[in-house]
Amino acid sequence: MKRIINPEKTNWKSVLARPELDQPNLDTVVREVFHQVAEHGDSGVATYVKQFQGFKGSLSVSKEEIEQAKNELAAELKNAIEMAAANIRSFHAAQTDEGMCLDTMEGVHCWRKSKPIQKVGLYIPGGTAPLFSTVLMLGIPAKLAGCEKIIMCTPCDASGNVHPAMLFAADLVGVTQIFKIGGIQAIAAMTLGTETVTAVYKLFGPGNQYVTAAKQFAQKYKVAIDMPAGPSEVMVVADDSAYPEFVAADLLSQAEHGQDSQVVLLTNSELFADLVEDQLKKQLEQLPRKEIAEAAIENSLTIVCKTEDFSELINTYAPEHLILSTEINEKLIEEVVNAGSVFIGNFTPESAGDYASGTNHTLPTNGYARQYSGVSLDSFVKKITYQEITEQGLRNIGPIIECMAEAEQLEAHKQAVSIRLKSLNA
Amino acid sequence: MKRIINPEKTNWKSVLARPELDQPNLDTVVREVFHQVAEHGDSGVATYVKQFQGFKGSLSVSKEEIEQAKNELAAELKNAIEMAAANIRSFHAAQTDEGMCLDTMEGVHCWRKSKPIQKVGLYIPGGTAPLFSTVLMLGIPAKLAGCEKIIMCTPCDASGNVHPAMLFAADLVGVTQIFKIGGIQAIAAMTLGTETVTAVYKLFGPGNQYVTAAKQFAQKYKVAIDMPAGPSEVMVVADDSAYPEFVAADLLSQAEHGQDSQVVLLTNSELFADLVEDQLKKQLEQLPRKEIAEAAIENSLTIVCKTEDFSELINTYAPEHLILSTEINEKLIEEVVNAGSVFIGNFTPESAGDYASGTNHTLPTNGYARQYSGVSLDSFVKKITYQEITEQGLRNIGPIIECMAEAEQLEAHKQAVSIRLKSLNA
Repeated sequence: MKRIINPEKTNWKSVLARPELDQPNLDTVVREVFHQVAEHGDSGVATYVKQFQGFKGSLSVSKEEIEQAKNELAAELKNAIEMAAANIRSFHAAQTDEGMCLDTMEGVHCWRKSKPIQKVGLYIPGGTAPLFSTVLMLGIPAKLAGCEKIIMCTPCDASGNVHPAMLFAADLVGVTQIFKIGGIQAIAAMTLGTETVTAVYKLFGPGNQYVTAAKQFAQKYKVAIDMPAGPSEVMVVADDSAYPEFVAADLLSQAEHGQDSQVVLLTNSELFADLVEDQLKKQLEQLPRKEIAEAAIENSLTIVCKTEDFSELINTYAPEHLILSTEINEKLIEEVVNAGSVFIGNFTPESAGDYASGTNHTLPTNGYARQYSGVSLDSFVKKITYQEITEQGLRNIGPIIECMAEAEQLEAHKQAVSIRLKSLNA
Repeated sequence: MKRIINPEKTNWKSVLARPELDQPNLDTVVREVFHQVAEHGDSGVATYVKQFQGFKGSLSVSKEEIEQAKNELAAELKNAIEMAAANIRSFHAAQTDEGMCLDTMEGVHCWRKSKPIQKVGLYIPGGTAPLFSTVLMLGIPAKLAGCEKIIMCTPCDASGNVHPAMLFAADLVGVTQIFKIGGIQAIAAMTLGTETVTAVYKLFGPGNQYVTAAKQFAQKYKVAIDMPAGPSEVMVVADDSAYPEFVAADLLSQAEHGQDSQVVLLTNSELFADLVEDQLKKQLEQLPRKEIAEAAIENSLTIVCKTEDFSELINTYAPEHLILSTEINEKLIEEVVNAGSVFIGNFTPESAGDYASGTNHTLPTNGYARQYSGVSLDSFVKKITYQEITEQGLRNIGPIIECMAEAEQLEAHKQAVSIRLKSLNA
């Protein structure tokens, strides 16, 4: 790990700057796939599934396949998924906004109420590992919100198989329909709709650079996306009250995601930083994804600074995941405003939130924690405002509206009130 | 108005399709302005202010100018603005999310809390009319949310004047600093920051095609925007219980915004549609913005259909503003899921929400009510999640995490738990 000791405040922004992402221009290929899917629907999608996934056959997951997955999956894993789902469900259900209402003036009744986004699309990457935890993180709030259609796309292998844990999780949370479609073609199908795939209003989920580019492009078709994408990251803030072996394990659990994972250790003690480095070397040896983690750790950063600089450095970096293992956790919780999700104390590893504590693991990366929240129940609803004014209410508020509309030179806005007030006085 | 009677359900989508917007490609000019502002800061901004606004001088509004505005403004208008501000403040304050917390398992304590976006930028268009109502709609929730820096940009005239109502409103709501900067240069300054203009994390506010293109471009610099832009629109749903003269006045108050304003009347009675048309002709004559309104009305649409089709047609169109003047308002309120803000009954004109009822007037246009909410207190905060797990809590949840991490082939995620559990058993 690169180590920086007591950086000058004027340099904090540059010290903590994330590396510029090398984003290839994938516009041409994305545009072409969208065009083919728009023109040829399911058969357009099938062509790309054959080309990129090597599979030819029905793209819709059948009830039989789901039943088979349920039978196949180990009981221990089914049980773990069910318990995690229960935690995620209860945490997100507690986010339900019952709405609010208020008479802002006598006879001016205003209120707000959540309504579900009717159709949502969940993209779940395949590849080396089956990310069934993401199925829980997106499917559970979608179902709780009352979304009518919850469409899920995930790539199958060349034989048409999807990992049984994916199908089990999707069935458990109430996904409406599952398709064996990956990559750009999945995003295009859910954006444009085909004979079998429903067009959705909002797209969720992580993905590789092709999926990211496709989600970006999809917005031209009036589809919303969950949030901008970027490599996953963790900042661990630790003093002598922390355990070096735990801190090293947390840094590695982030580092194994990919070589571009961002890993930052913030501490007030050089000795502690040394101890963490020792532990890193030791623990790295035991990891199957050692090479990936090693590369990410090499690119990563230790900052040694005064305790009183912790909170401002955290806010400057705005980490996706923030682990607090210090004697001043309470103070930091109060002062930190830029973070996706916060893990507090020595026995709260990030992986708890990745899987099972109940909080959502779809979080703002790349500094977006400054202005974006992670996925929550809110992500699957719109909050509509309502107003109902009585005759007396319009007598109360009408003159205010007339005066302001006139000053803004919007005469018809004024008239919409005046014509009503006149009728009341007639 | 174009009139369509009982359209086939298969045609609803095309009947209600909004005209494709002719969006000129402004990328080159936007890129150039951003480049100049990045290179030259304030002096880069000043060059464009001179060129496009015809003004040369200090770009920051002084305390003296604000005091002068307060003295200049008519007492009646000041009073109206203050009363509207009070309503908007109380409606948005009632949206405060006190946060939630929950032990998802014994010893697994999770919670969520709102934190303000530290720096926000409000763009308020100038031009023909001083839109001080938008200052209230953006500035009030920003202040309530606790945003530390609330930067406002609005174009001045060639003499450097900003309408006193704008300055009065900005001062009233607690804007931190006001700049006399309009157009692309305003968006560039708030995105990139200059010697005097603070770089912000999120941009709010309406604008012409240049501002819209600049807000779109700003997102490349990791700035968020409030929502995608489009022409304003209203759908009025009316049966024989409505008053044709009120309905006509509401249609016109939307139509006067611009020739591209979208105006739709949904009714179950041809006779009622005729009566509204008569009223439109009559009321149009009295409007100062007659030509604009007339053009918008010519492009607009009356749909005559069965009462039972109302809610599905509304949901298909997804209007920014929805006025309900029917005998089945309660039923429609229940069934409508796609709308920005809803105005209920014969004495609730849209202009009430535009100015003073308390609801926000920054709403999703162009069908985006399917997946976006209007601006609210939520727009100015992030909701951060937290978790704190006790030793016993980790004993409870640890095995679930280990099992799931292993199945996802993320060994280091598992180890972050295992190493802690081992230490507890040691």
